[in-house]
Amino acid sequence: MIIVGELINSSRKVIPPLIEGHDAAAIQDLARRQMEAGATFVDVNAGTFVAQEIEHLSWLVTTVQAAVDAPLCIDSPNPAALEKALTLHRGKAMVNSITAEKARYNTIVPLVKKYKTAVVALCMDDRGMPESAAERVAVARELGARLQQEGIPLDDVYFDPLVRPVSTDPRYGTMMLDTTRGIKEHLPQAHVICGLSNVSFGLPLRKLLNQNFLVMAMTCGLDAVIIDPLDARIMSNLYATAALLGKDEYCMNYIARHRDGKIQL
Amino acid sequence: MIIVGELINSSRKVIPPLIEGHDAAAIQDLARRQMEAGATFVDVNAGTFVAQEIEHLSWLVTTVQAAVDAPLCIDSPNPAALEKALTLHRGKAMVNSITAEKARYNTIVPLVKKYKTAVVALCMDDRGMPESAAERVAVARELGARLQQEGIPLDDVYFDPLVRPVSTDPRYGTMMLDTTRGIKEHLPQAHVICGLSNVSFGLPLRKLLNQNFLVMAMTCGLDAVIIDPLDARIMSNLYATAALLGKDEYCMNYIARHRDGKIQL
Repeated sequence: MIIVGELINSSRKVIPPLIEGHDAAAIQDLARRQMEAGATFVDVNAGTFVAQEIEHLSWLVTTVQAAVDAPLCIDSPNPAALEKALTLHRGKAMVNSITAEKARYNTIVPLVKKYKTAVVALCMDDRGMPESAAERVAVARELGARLQQEGIPLDDVYFDPLVRPVSTDPRYGTMMLDTTRGIKEHLPQAHVICGLSNVSFGLPLRKLLNQNFLVMAMTCGLDAVIIDPLDARIMSNLYATAALLGKDEYCMNYIARHRDGKIQL
Repeated sequence: MIIVGELINSSRKVIPPLIEGHDAAAIQDLARRQMEAGATFVDVNAGTFVAQEIEHLSWLVTTVQAAVDAPLCIDSPNPAALEKALTLHRGKAMVNSITAEKARYNTIVPLVKKYKTAVVALCMDDRGMPESAAERVAVARELGARLQQEGIPLDDVYFDPLVRPVSTDPRYGTMMLDTTRGIKEHLPQAHVICGLSNVSFGLPLRKLLNQNFLVMAMTCGLDAVIIDPLDARIMSNLYATAALLGKDEYCMNYIARHRDGKIQL
């Protein structure tokens, strides 16, 4: 399972003061703890700053990579902010994100090619967010074909099936799960990634729902997730599910993490 | 979700003294609490008594049904014990279980027909327990066809895909999940049921694994489960998963149980 640690994001209210104050120690501590907890990528996002996004996102990239030897998931729809961040990034980054929307695709895909990054691709186009799994899979297949034509290997593409709240439409859960299955069927070399928390919007005990939805999505083929890796509960479910899916040979990883006191009921 | 409460089973060490001492109050309390927690059927099993199984199973049936207005899952491979129990049972019972093994099939199916019960059908035959999902689905399809020829509707059949420990073979988890998907694809009117605890045999924090495996199996089409309904944690996961699968319109059941303090993280 590929884990993108989501905590260094300016939409979380603890983060903007750390960025504005250039509190490198606090940001680096957050990066280190996410990596120790099992993250593969550290997400960095300074989107709420708008006018200063370029400057702040760049500062995050150099500050985080000074502390951890890890690739970053550079989280912005702004091509200028992405490009500046990519010039500073060491190793193979992940760009978060493109869509099949013409403007977004045309400005960001050239950066993905130039800097040979991985990329998150949302299953939507200029018509908006499709209202069925079949249409989302169709968008993914079209995007997959175009990206391959551009020379981007499918193994670098992380499709996001888009998660919407089941409280607003009971079909939104299965729509995401069926999209995940469909992408894995038609584009088996590509990855499927998502964030979870949207699914539980408006409902009580959201953590329980998010936790279960991760297990459900992994069962349908999800192989990457944008998550809080410091949440021991959701990480325990992730490792338990990997073991049950036979993706943890003889459960060695699950057992080792249990021995380290990292698996919680 | 159809829930079979598993607690009145002589293989649990607290139960045999209650049966031998004819402690009706204790058995009835256990039945009542399981029903209040959400059980659809109450399982009764006196299998460890061997020579006295007929007598004890009959006592369980009348004792439990004197306390709760619920159908029972009569759990025995012994046709004589089953028949005596079925003569005493009020309403539509579930017989647990048949297989495609000739002797077991030929002695128990006539009782299923005579007493018009539902039946648990294990996906195995005289060759033993198949070592692939495809073979288990094939056994289920054959059993399904034969049972329909006997006049037993598929809606009364609960196939058990058979759960084995992932610690002994990492493929056993997906084998069960793929069997569940296959049965639901080829026999959509039939049910799929299982017990969970075998999957985690030999591993630490078994409850976490069992809990996750329930969520995974429900995602693949499991619509019945043999479970401890007094385990608030596993029941919380069950209701959360039903909501996420769109099987709980606008999450009303999840929200109502949360309001009653019955949903736990």
